Amino acid sequence: VASDTRQRLIRTTGRLLRRQGYGAMGLSQVISEAGAPKGSLYFHFPGGKEELAAAAVDRFADRTTATIADWLREEGSAADAVVRMFDFYIEHLPATGFAEGCAVATVALDAAASHDVLAQATERAFGRWTGLLAEALEAEGRRPDEARNLATLAIAAVEGAIVMAKGQRSAEPLAGTRDALRAILA
Amino acid sequence: VASDTRQRLIRTTGRLLRRQGYGAMGLSQVISEAGAPKGSLYFHFPGGKEELAAAAVDRFADRTTATIADWLREEGSAADAVVRMFDFYIEHLPATGFAEGCAVATVALDAAASHDVLAQATERAFGRWTGLLAEALEAEGRRPDEARNLATLAIAAVEGAIVMAKGQRSAEPLAGTRDALRAILA
Repeated sequence: VASDTRQRLIRTTGRLLRRQGYGAMGLSQVISEAGAPKGSLYFHFPGGKEELAAAAVDRFADRTTATIADWLREEGSAADAVVRMFDFYIEHLPATGFAEGCAVATVALDAAASHDVLAQATERAFGRWTGLLAEALEAEGRRPDEARNLATLAIAAVEGAIVMAKGQRSAEPLAGTRDALRAILA
Repeated sequence: VASDTRQRLIRTTGRLLRRQGYGAMGLSQVISEAGAPKGSLYFHFPGGKEELAAAAVDRFADRTTATIADWLREEGSAADAVVRMFDFYIEHLPATGFAEGCAVATVALDAAASHDVLAQATERAFGRWTGLLAEALEAEGRRPDEARNLATLAIAAVEGAIVMAKGQRSAEPLAGTRDALRAILA
């Protein structure tokens, strides 16, 4: 079915973006890894690589937003939800040979400055994640500006610790950052 | 002079890594932007793109390490030196159209998992920066493990806030993260 191909193209793109960023990702690689027919990419994404990558960033952002919301609800505190974000990557990065980080971060670093459609997608993603956490921190009694800054720190710390873990091929930076942040958010 | 060409190749590579990462960087782009003779790249870097990028990451790491050491000495506190790291990027990112971030982070995200020589370079860089800050925090009276975790958080926060600033084309995430962190480190 046509829409299966579309979803497969988006999923494959998401995985490639997490591993190698936007610049190094080739469309022939996407088509071959997705097992998609040659003509299907421009049929589903007339805007080509940029439109496809923006769809993959949006999908990653949607799923992550839903996960953060789940964890906030399940854990009952912003601190514990943030700890769970770190614990997820403490498992996931070693399991993928320290290859598979955040699809929004790679695109933000290597492509957002030069591609408007991608910058809009990465901006939406960071805005939603920070907004969710800030709301939770405010509900826990923090002042709005303090909640906003702490939420921004928490998202930045997760993203930066993923960068360090990939660069050091070790989960240690994630664990250290988590432990420092847990005390701060509690 | 041959060594001028070598330095020019490394400098150009550093700038390109900060802007677009490792995967998207082409050697012909490096040679043309460095104004270097065609044969000079493999003469100076027999290991090609990977060796050249590792040299650029090392140079970026050396200069940043020296800068952090200067700021620690000039400011007299780890908190104020970290604030100065944020303030640097709060100026630098908008001045470069949100293109020029950290050369170590882009390589860590898009290439360290698959290139051993690059992973060694990014590991050295993060290890040195974290070590310097941890030492300063310990000298201020923190317990060694607390100093280590806070230093890791601070470096992760800078790296992650750069990612967010590039993704949002705004210095706001850097300012918010800085303000949250200043209170924590003080």
